Amino acid sequence: MALDTPHVSAEVFKEGMSRLAGAVNIVTTDGPAGRAGLTATAVCSVSADPPTLLVCVNTTGSAADAFAANEAVCINTIGADHQALAMLFGGKTPMDERFDDLNWRTAVSGAPVLKESVVSFDCTVASRVVSGTHEVLFCEVIEITQAPEAGALVYFDRRFHTLPSGA
Amino acid sequence: MALDTPHVSAEVFKEGMSRLAGAVNIVTTDGPAGRAGLTATAVCSVSADPPTLLVCVNTTGSAADAFAANEAVCINTIGADHQALAMLFGGKTPMDERFDDLNWRTAVSGAPVLKESVVSFDCTVASRVVSGTHEVLFCEVIEITQAPEAGALVYFDRRFHTLPSGA
Repeated sequence: MALDTPHVSAEVFKEGMSRLAGAVNIVTTDGPAGRAGLTATAVCSVSADPPTLLVCVNTTGSAADAFAANEAVCINTIGADHQALAMLFGGKTPMDERFDDLNWRTAVSGAPVLKESVVSFDCTVASRVVSGTHEVLFCEVIEITQAPEAGALVYFDRRFHTLPSGA
Repeated sequence: MALDTPHVSAEVFKEGMSRLAGAVNIVTTDGPAGRAGLTATAVCSVSADPPTLLVCVNTTGSAADAFAANEAVCINTIGADHQALAMLFGGKTPMDERFDDLNWRTAVSGAPVLKESVVSFDCTVASRVVSGTHEVLFCEVIEITQAPEAGALVYFDRRFHTLPSGA
């Protein structure tokens, strides 16, 4: 539908979005276009049948080419212990150096799984939709691993917050 | 892409998703198919240009017909004060009774805006994608209103949590 009213500006939109709390995830991929990963809060559940979630990836970011070409994606939802890793994957560090530690194993799909995530959704990309500056990846879930005792890391009002586990 | 590995079950998926924290939103609509609203955590930012966010709506829910036909949608992100409203809009109460109080005004789009939300994104639906049991609404933002001092309400591990505002 064509809008007959003006949009809000990008600045007003970003200010508004800072008020929508989001779980912090390190989203990874591997495959023909190489290994890559980024920090994202734009992740949400879509459907339990087939089990699907989505992640929005900026098409101008340093990980964009890998996510555009690979089919294997792992969404690693992180807890309070991994705040430094969230900063690392949200920064300018070269892709290969981001995986330079013992935190990672390879998922069924081939994507890197963070060993001590709150929950990791190992997926293959079922479909893609471009919207503005971002590509939305619809990811079907092959395998889930989780640490039930881990609390959540959430981003709200431009800072990190932690939530306790119910376990 | 056709999967050559099995999916996880719906039960395993839902258990995993309970570990992905999500802001609580009351998503409303009005228009030719009538006024409706539901509680959703499946909301995320897509792009700042044009300013777009998305919400996933179950196509079998009681609000589905209204969301399928109307173009006006308001995503009202709520705080600790509105936990009862989250339960109301997530339950079986008839649509019209859900709006039976003084909390609501009409947005530019025509959708109901919650007056004391943390942030409200008044939108028109720019496009729609069906995925499994859900329709994903890509919503372009016309107007944003917010209460900077309000803290967030987040759902994690099957219960509500609150986060303080930075204001």
